[in-house]
Amino acid sequence: MYDRTKQAVESTLAAIIHRRIAEASLMSPEHTHLWESIRGVITSGGKRVRPYLTMVGYGEFTDAIVPVATAQELVHTAMLMHDDVIDQDSLRHGSDNIIGIYLKRYANTRLDKNQKRHYAYSAAVLAGDALLSEAYALILQSQMPPQVIKLLIDRLHRSVFEAIGGELMDVEAPILHTESDPILIYRYKTASYSLTGPLVSGAYCAGASQQTLTLLESFGINAGIGFQLQDDLLGVFGNETATGKSTITDLREAKLTTLISAHKRRMDDQQKERFNTIFGNEHATPQQFTLLKKDIADSGAKHETEALIEGYFQKAKNAVLELENESQKNELMQFIDSLQKRKF
Amino acid sequence: MYDRTKQAVESTLAAIIHRRIAEASLMSPEHTHLWESIRGVITSGGKRVRPYLTMVGYGEFTDAIVPVATAQELVHTAMLMHDDVIDQDSLRHGSDNIIGIYLKRYANTRLDKNQKRHYAYSAAVLAGDALLSEAYALILQSQMPPQVIKLLIDRLHRSVFEAIGGELMDVEAPILHTESDPILIYRYKTASYSLTGPLVSGAYCAGASQQTLTLLESFGINAGIGFQLQDDLLGVFGNETATGKSTITDLREAKLTTLISAHKRRMDDQQKERFNTIFGNEHATPQQFTLLKKDIADSGAKHETEALIEGYFQKAKNAVLELENESQKNELMQFIDSLQKRKF
Repeated sequence: MYDRTKQAVESTLAAIIHRRIAEASLMSPEHTHLWESIRGVITSGGKRVRPYLTMVGYGEFTDAIVPVATAQELVHTAMLMHDDVIDQDSLRHGSDNIIGIYLKRYANTRLDKNQKRHYAYSAAVLAGDALLSEAYALILQSQMPPQVIKLLIDRLHRSVFEAIGGELMDVEAPILHTESDPILIYRYKTASYSLTGPLVSGAYCAGASQQTLTLLESFGINAGIGFQLQDDLLGVFGNETATGKSTITDLREAKLTTLISAHKRRMDDQQKERFNTIFGNEHATPQQFTLLKKDIADSGAKHETEALIEGYFQKAKNAVLELENESQKNELMQFIDSLQKRKF
Repeated sequence: MYDRTKQAVESTLAAIIHRRIAEASLMSPEHTHLWESIRGVITSGGKRVRPYLTMVGYGEFTDAIVPVATAQELVHTAMLMHDDVIDQDSLRHGSDNIIGIYLKRYANTRLDKNQKRHYAYSAAVLAGDALLSEAYALILQSQMPPQVIKLLIDRLHRSVFEAIGGELMDVEAPILHTESDPILIYRYKTASYSLTGPLVSGAYCAGASQQTLTLLESFGINAGIGFQLQDDLLGVFGNETATGKSTITDLREAKLTTLISAHKRRMDDQQKERFNTIFGNEHATPQQFTLLKKDIADSGAKHETEALIEGYFQKAKNAVLELENESQKNELMQFIDSLQKRKF
C-alpha cells in the first residue's frame, strides 16, 4: 500500500504543479518562478507519510481517494513553509526551502541583508498560502459524495486550526514563559494534521463506523505524542551518526521537553547545581554536557520518559487491536513498530 | 441590498469568531488570544464591499448565500494580514492590525526589537492562514448544490492564485527591476479577488448564464483596474484632507505607476531634469514636489491617466448595460458611479 500510494500521490503533485506553472506563466515570470520553486521543494523528497495514512484509514489502496491523500501532503507542505518562516530556517532536510531559494534569487540585488531575508520570508508566506488553498481545491476534485466532501473539508479545517493553535503554544512558551504542556503541543501541532487527520479522512471515504473513527483518532493522538516524545529523547540520547543531529543542541538551547521536566522534578541538589550551570549555557563544554546527560539518566528521568513513550505507543497499539479491518490492522501495527524501533 | 448584506455578513463573522474563541479556549490561552485579536481586527470596520458584490452577483439579497458572501470577506482579510507582513505595516486604517496587537503583547518581553517584529509577523502569518482556511470551510456550510459548491471553491482558489501572482509581481518589480505592467498587477492583485471573484460567485449561486458570467467578469476587471489607477492619481493629485494621505509619499518613494510611466514618456528635457532630481529623492523639498506635480499635469500625463481611468470605467459600464437583471444593473451602475466620484 505504501509504495503505490507514494507513487500515485507524487504523480498527482507533479500534475498539479505542472498545470499551475503553465497557468502562472501566462501571468508573469515572477509567479512562474514561485511555482518552479514550489516544484523544487515538493519533488526534493518526503516520505509521504500523511497520504499513506489516509490510504490506511480507507483500508486499501484505491485511485479514488488519491486526491484526498494528496491534499494532506499539501497542507503539510504549506504548514512547513510557514513554520520555516517562523523558525527562520532556510534549509529543510539539507536542501534549500522556499526561503533558501529566494535568498539566492535576491543575492545580487541592492537589498540589504535584512531586506533579503524579509522578502525571502514573504515568498515563503505566499507559497504556503498557495498550497493551503490548493489542498482545499483538490478535495473538491475527488469524486466522493457531497456529504463525504463536507466531512473531509471540515476535518482539513480542524487540522489547520489545531496546527495553528499548537504552533502558537510552542512559539510563545519561551517568549511569555507560559506553562505550556509539551504533550498538548504535540497533540495539536503534530498529531492532529499528521496522523489523526489523514487516518480519519481516509476512514470518512470508506464510510467507516463511529467506533472505527474513534479508534483511529485514539491511534493518531497516541502515536503522534509518542513519536514527538521519542524525538526529544533522541535529541539528547540519540546516535548522532544516525540522527545527523548533535545531541548537545537541545540542551544548549534549553529546550523544555518532558524529559527535562522529569529531570527537574527528580534531580538531587548536586544534580540541580550542575543543571543550573550547564542547561541553556552556550559556553558550556562538551564534557559538561556529557555530565548533564549522565545526570538525566541517573535521576531516572530518561527511564521515566522511556516508560511514558512506551505507554503512548501501547495505547496506540491497543486501539489498533480493536480495529475490524485486517489489512488496516496490519499496516498500522507495522507502522507503529517502525516508529518504535527508529533510531533517528 | 448593501445594508442587509453588511449586517448579515457581520453577524456571520461574529458567530464564526465566537465559536472559534470557544474552541481555542479549550486548547490554550495563546490560541484564544489569537482569535480575540482576529475579532478585534475584523470588527474594527470594513465596508464589506466583497460580500455586497457577491449579493449583487446573485441579483438580490438572500440568506442562502450569506456564507458564500462572508467567505469573500474572510479571504480578503487573510490576504490583507499577509500583505501587511510583506509590507511590514503594523497599522491598517489607523488601528492596530494583528502585527500591531502582537507588538504590544511582546512589548515587555526580553525579545530584542527585531525578534519582537519577527514574532508579531509570525502571529499575523498564522492568523491569515486561519482565516484562509475558514473561508473554504464556510463555503461548504452553504446549502448550495454540490456542483455549485465545486464552482465556488474553484473560483475562490483562482482568487487566491491570482492574488498571490499579482502580489509577487508588485513586490519583485522594484527588487529585480522587472518591467511589470501595473495594469496586470491591478488585474491580478486586486480585481480578481475583490470584484470578479465575488460577483461571479454570487452569479454561480443564481445559476447565471455564461453570458452574464462573462459580463460580470468584464465589469470586475475593468472597474478594478479603473479603481487602482484612480488610487494612483489620487496619491499625487488627491485632496490630502479627504484621502488622509500625503500626496508626496508616492513621489518620494518612487512608486512606479501608470501616471509616472506616462509622464516619463511625455516629459521634455527640462521636465526630465527636474524628474530625475526630485522623483524618489527623500531629501527633496515640498516646493520641489509641487513643481514635479505641476510638470506631471503640464506634460499631459495627468490628463492621459484620467482618460485611461474613464476608459476602464466606461468599459465596466458597457458590461453593466448588457445585463438582463434590472436590480443587478441598478446596483452595479450605482456602484461604479460611487467609485468614479470618489475623492479618497
